[in-house]
Amino acid sequence: MAGAEIEALIRHLSKLPGLGPRSARRIALALLKKRESMLDPLVRTMQAAAEAVRICQTCGNYDSQDPCSICTDTRRDGSLVCVVEGVSDLWALERTAAFKGKYHVTGGLLSPIDGIGPDDLKIDRLLARVQNGVVKEVVLALSATVDGQTTAHYIADRLKDTGITISGLAHGVPVGGELDYLDDGTISAALKARRPM
Amino acid sequence: MAGAEIEALIRHLSKLPGLGPRSARRIALALLKKRESMLDPLVRTMQAAAEAVRICQTCGNYDSQDPCSICTDTRRDGSLVCVVEGVSDLWALERTAAFKGKYHVTGGLLSPIDGIGPDDLKIDRLLARVQNGVVKEVVLALSATVDGQTTAHYIADRLKDTGITISGLAHGVPVGGELDYLDDGTISAALKARRPM
Repeated sequence: MAGAEIEALIRHLSKLPGLGPRSARRIALALLKKRESMLDPLVRTMQAAAEAVRICQTCGNYDSQDPCSICTDTRRDGSLVCVVEGVSDLWALERTAAFKGKYHVTGGLLSPIDGIGPDDLKIDRLLARVQNGVVKEVVLALSATVDGQTTAHYIADRLKDTGITISGLAHGVPVGGELDYLDDGTISAALKARRPM
Repeated sequence: MAGAEIEALIRHLSKLPGLGPRSARRIALALLKKRESMLDPLVRTMQAAAEAVRICQTCGNYDSQDPCSICTDTRRDGSLVCVVEGVSDLWALERTAAFKGKYHVTGGLLSPIDGIGPDDLKIDRLLARVQNGVVKEVVLALSATVDGQTTAHYIADRLKDTGITISGLAHGVPVGGELDYLDDGTISAALKARRPM
């Protein structure tokens, strides 16, 4: 159809999450049309990110420094560690600005079917980290899925003799959510955890 | 939230057509996670495309060569020129493999409101090109919108004294389309252009 370079560009773009052949073609055309204002700056930022960004060896976050800016931030509460599955969840929590502790990224969830065990999630590293005497509470902010809850129970079990408080995110009605569209499990959980007003 | 390089990467990705902040974050994370298998190859193909791809000075297509592989293809019918708005339309026609002539990309549509006149669309170049004695028919494959039809009428008007046959795409029911979901204009056009079976 077009030149080999354009075909290769479309093929690589269509591998990105959420993009298919159609959106990749659209993006490729936009990049070729706006070479100076779009393609070149994007290449430069991608190269800069590839060079600068590393994984924080303490918590697993992506940052230009290791330990990351969250781990080194002395204004954050080091006695509180929030366990998340991935960096995207960490970013989601950070956007709320509601959590002022530190994080620990497992990089996945326990999943016997996919052959993902405790060693793959570096849970020993989490255990070693929270047993430094500083950490008082571990918040398990894992997905409310089967794998997420299995992982949460496993971590809670491994931590139960340390004396550290273990908590999980509350279940309930999402803010702005309509009861009519909610699943039964969420409604029963919200009923069980009802609060005085 | 994250390092400056990550923020810049997300900002540049979210400028791509069809992407917003959420999909840009998702793509940025995937790129950072799969640096060797995704980010580096994408940077290389983008650089290769930026270097190799040029605009065909004859028809306006993107290709690694100028004149492009369609313009230089001797198996294609040079007496037939299809006028399209953009390269994406040219690609769409090429995917059907139903057209074996050559193309002419206007790069836009006449739009008095946006201040786009005949000079911006290089329509003089099209006129000069088709008046070489080789071109017998010009197919106006422009969008069935007001601007598209205005542009088609303008080009047809400029070509009317050349003796070249001018045609347009047929209007009708899309293949696989249900009448119930079609607009009235399309149904009346399909009725008017009804064919013996």
